[in-house]
Amino acid sequence: MSFTIRKALKDDMLDVMNLIKELAHFEKEADAVQVTVEDLENDGFGESPLFNCFVAEMDSEIVGMALFYSRYSTWKGPTIHLEDLIVTESKRGLKIGSALYAKVIEYGYKKGVKRIEWAVLDWNKPAIDFYEKTGARVLRDWNTVHIENESIKNYVNGL
Amino acid sequence: MSFTIRKALKDDMLDVMNLIKELAHFEKEADAVQVTVEDLENDGFGESPLFNCFVAEMDSEIVGMALFYSRYSTWKGPTIHLEDLIVTESKRGLKIGSALYAKVIEYGYKKGVKRIEWAVLDWNKPAIDFYEKTGARVLRDWNTVHIENESIKNYVNGL
Repeated sequence: MSFTIRKALKDDMLDVMNLIKELAHFEKEADAVQVTVEDLENDGFGESPLFNCFVAEMDSEIVGMALFYSRYSTWKGPTIHLEDLIVTESKRGLKIGSALYAKVIEYGYKKGVKRIEWAVLDWNKPAIDFYEKTGARVLRDWNTVHIENESIKNYVNGL
Repeated sequence: MSFTIRKALKDDMLDVMNLIKELAHFEKEADAVQVTVEDLENDGFGESPLFNCFVAEMDSEIVGMALFYSRYSTWKGPTIHLEDLIVTESKRGLKIGSALYAKVIEYGYKKGVKRIEWAVLDWNKPAIDFYEKTGARVLRDWNTVHIENESIKNYVNGL
């Protein structure tokens, strides 16, 4: 069962979207996906792409993806954020996830960034164990905060 | 004690750096700041700026700042990440932080982003209370993961 990792092309965005939806469905959040294939095509492959993406291909099928972009740390300078790393359920356990992960870390290394970061669910022990084995550190005392659509609108209108 | 909030200029970066260092010092992490004033000037005010910044000015002095940039959610599309919101210690309690926060949320609202996000220390109850009152939600089960300089190098060299 061999696979290859390569940079995603615009034409891969339908497959990438399907992976995003598969994960959202698994997390029982299918309705939360508001991005469309066209959005991914425009946002990732325009003049100033908003993200970069690697895909894993097996028998001419996209079976995994890693999507990432630049961030900025006022301590470290430019960093990379790994937003999504998804392997389709039927192809797990074949080290495809590790290979995608390695590709992103290698990409950051070549770019010379001083930090690569991402988020993990605090109960996802297999993932945490894997990350820590590669030298990553879980910042257990930092939580993520979100303000979304309706709340943004309500807050601004109340100012 | 009145203040104004305005977009940061390149010339403000020395003052912004001092605020970054003040916070790092307070967190007993002064040595972790590897970014220089020149980095901030180049990274924030070049052809493709890596961040945006608002500053709070009082009696011709910069007393606070909010630094943010674009991210990308595969569910929501383009989002804004608030990286730092700092008010100098002697000027706290004057609602300067709230005003900087409001300016960033308003900026995101005008841009039409579906999410604005940031990180908070899980023990920082005053901050969490403030955020929740504005309609933001703390994602308590998500942790941040970092892999930095040396670990990136060691991991890549071991591949």
